[in-house]
Amino acid sequence: MEIAMPDTAAPYQATDRTVPTRSRERASYDRALVHGILDEAYVCHLGFVRDGAPVVLPTLYGRVGERLYVHGSTGSRPLRAAGQADPGLAVCLTVTHVDGLVLARSAFHHSINYRSVVVHGIAHEVTDPQEKRTALDALVDHVVPGRSADSRPANAKELAATAVISLDLNEVSAKVRSGGPNDDPEDLGLPHWAGVLPLVPRYGTPIPSDDLDASLAVPGYLSAL
Amino acid sequence: MEIAMPDTAAPYQATDRTVPTRSRERASYDRALVHGILDEAYVCHLGFVRDGAPVVLPTLYGRVGERLYVHGSTGSRPLRAAGQADPGLAVCLTVTHVDGLVLARSAFHHSINYRSVVVHGIAHEVTDPQEKRTALDALVDHVVPGRSADSRPANAKELAATAVISLDLNEVSAKVRSGGPNDDPEDLGLPHWAGVLPLVPRYGTPIPSDDLDASLAVPGYLSAL
Repeated sequence: MEIAMPDTAAPYQATDRTVPTRSRERASYDRALVHGILDEAYVCHLGFVRDGAPVVLPTLYGRVGERLYVHGSTGSRPLRAAGQADPGLAVCLTVTHVDGLVLARSAFHHSINYRSVVVHGIAHEVTDPQEKRTALDALVDHVVPGRSADSRPANAKELAATAVISLDLNEVSAKVRSGGPNDDPEDLGLPHWAGVLPLVPRYGTPIPSDDLDASLAVPGYLSAL
Repeated sequence: MEIAMPDTAAPYQATDRTVPTRSRERASYDRALVHGILDEAYVCHLGFVRDGAPVVLPTLYGRVGERLYVHGSTGSRPLRAAGQADPGLAVCLTVTHVDGLVLARSAFHHSINYRSVVVHGIAHEVTDPQEKRTALDALVDHVVPGRSADSRPANAKELAATAVISLDLNEVSAKVRSGGPNDDPEDLGLPHWAGVLPLVPRYGTPIPSDDLDASLAVPGYLSAL
């Protein structure tokens, strides 16, 4: 089980495809920023090519250091493809938070505030049993930190039915827009409200399973959210 | 300007790539469900192929009937590619809402509740000036319904700098997971809390632009959100 652990102080190295053609000032290669954006989201959008056409599917993921993990049924198409392809499956994994709606005086300058991460790379099937367990724990802990230690681990049958692919964080960029609208100076006097409507994800009240033993309280790691 | 307006009562026709290999019971081809999922999200993830590799970028979009619109700078790579490619650019456009975290007794059955839509198709550049204006209005109204009528429309220079591509809703599927965990019967007695933690996006208080005329009140269409 080898997980690349580079100098975390050094930013990701920009490449042709991680330098945006537009709004370059919003791009960042900072590891801490990238990790934070990745860790805060629940779903990534995984893109791959099938029969020459793009496919983008939402899926859960987990992060261990500089490696991401995605899992699925051994029968699922991308996971099967990653296992069969040599040297792996070319993917693009993207995560986006929408932080606010940006209303400008001009239609042209309407936007959203967001934080996104785009990862390019080759996904490989995880075959090492120990790394596979680590990856599955990371996937559960990504949903609720601390949860893998408070659930029944996968048994042999479940492990056999689950495929895991890994994607190293090498060719990575973040992009962030924040702040108010960027109206043109000549539009500032127009009689249209301008500003930002923030969007804030909130957790609702936990809903116990119908068949839950009533003596089991909501665990601390959940109410901490 | 031709926008397909099929019988809205008929579902989308399933194709090989819109029938999932897993959890088929969660798939739907219902137009109203698909439209609802699309209209509620702010960002889609647009996938395309560049130099043989997948690229997935978050972007705003708008919907007019059975057609989606994405816009960007005329210099942006996918928009340029859609304009140059014949018959257009093969894309996959995906929208996902995360509705809750599903905690099961077993690590294996952890999941999330979600609603997603995946659209496959060929994106074309919109060249008709009237359709382009309609598309740009739809993009602004997708951010805040009613807003295009309360902002300065794009001028000739802005229109020239903006490229719009269209994608018809033909090859489309929705996928929905809801409800509690699906633990195996033999796990129901385990001492782990199980249930759902709902995730609810909320709007914060509108933040006026620093340079906003103080006499301009928050508009009704915004406070209605």
